[in-house]
Amino acid sequence: MPVDIAADIDVCQYGRMSKISPCCPPVLHAALSKSDAEDLASLFKALGDPARLRLLSFIAAQPDGEACVCFLTEPVGLSQPTVSHHLKVLHDAGLLEREKRGAWVYYRVVPQRLEAIRGVLATRGPRPRAKKGA
Amino acid sequence: MPVDIAADIDVCQYGRMSKISPCCPPVLHAALSKSDAEDLASLFKALGDPARLRLLSFIAAQPDGEACVCFLTEPVGLSQPTVSHHLKVLHDAGLLEREKRGAWVYYRVVPQRLEAIRGVLATRGPRPRAKKGA
Repeated sequence: MPVDIAADIDVCQYGRMSKISPCCPPVLHAALSKSDAEDLASLFKALGDPARLRLLSFIAAQPDGEACVCFLTEPVGLSQPTVSHHLKVLHDAGLLEREKRGAWVYYRVVPQRLEAIRGVLATRGPRPRAKKGA
Repeated sequence: MPVDIAADIDVCQYGRMSKISPCCPPVLHAALSKSDAEDLASLFKALGDPARLRLLSFIAAQPDGEACVCFLTEPVGLSQPTVSHHLKVLHDAGLLEREKRGAWVYYRVVPQRLEAIRGVLATRGPRPRAKKGA
């Protein structure tokens, strides 16, 4: 199985996901286009699974911030094919990078990607509540 | 239909969603429990739909940060029942508050909820890459 190694992570390089990068407008600052909304929804769908969140969290919590795929089935209590599927979804969404070393593949969270999502969800600060007749 | 008015928004008051509030550990700082992961995945699922993202975005982009339900079907090009379903999902996830004024219901984004999600996704800063044999 070929393995892509993302040595220089650029959140603008993820193909159709590029529009959620920090270079693009956040959700709450102006009305999203249909295309931007579809791209962003794909990313939230990737995060909308408990097993995938636990995998992300487990990998990020490791002492050196990465984990071998061989150690990822036990923490989430799922089969190897299921874990591999979830890792692929996270990798395709740009949330994990992977690197082959010898016989094993290591996964690492892409912090720039998480920061991009945080930027997309940034609010504009408090606004006065409208005073309209009840 | 009864309408709940959340006058004082507290992200810790959203029942089973309470664990993703700012008072709880973020995804990337320690391994998530199964229960926390399920709660958080529910929230990302609510965001994982283009129509819901466009509704959130459209409401937030209004001059006073709120929109009457009667004006929300046209911007997303969906039927009233479909829009109502999406608004209910967003409201149930704590992302929208609603208020009845006369004959109409007005929706407003809950910025504290978005900030809570941003907090959950906060990273721990850059780490040195592991130097292991290739």
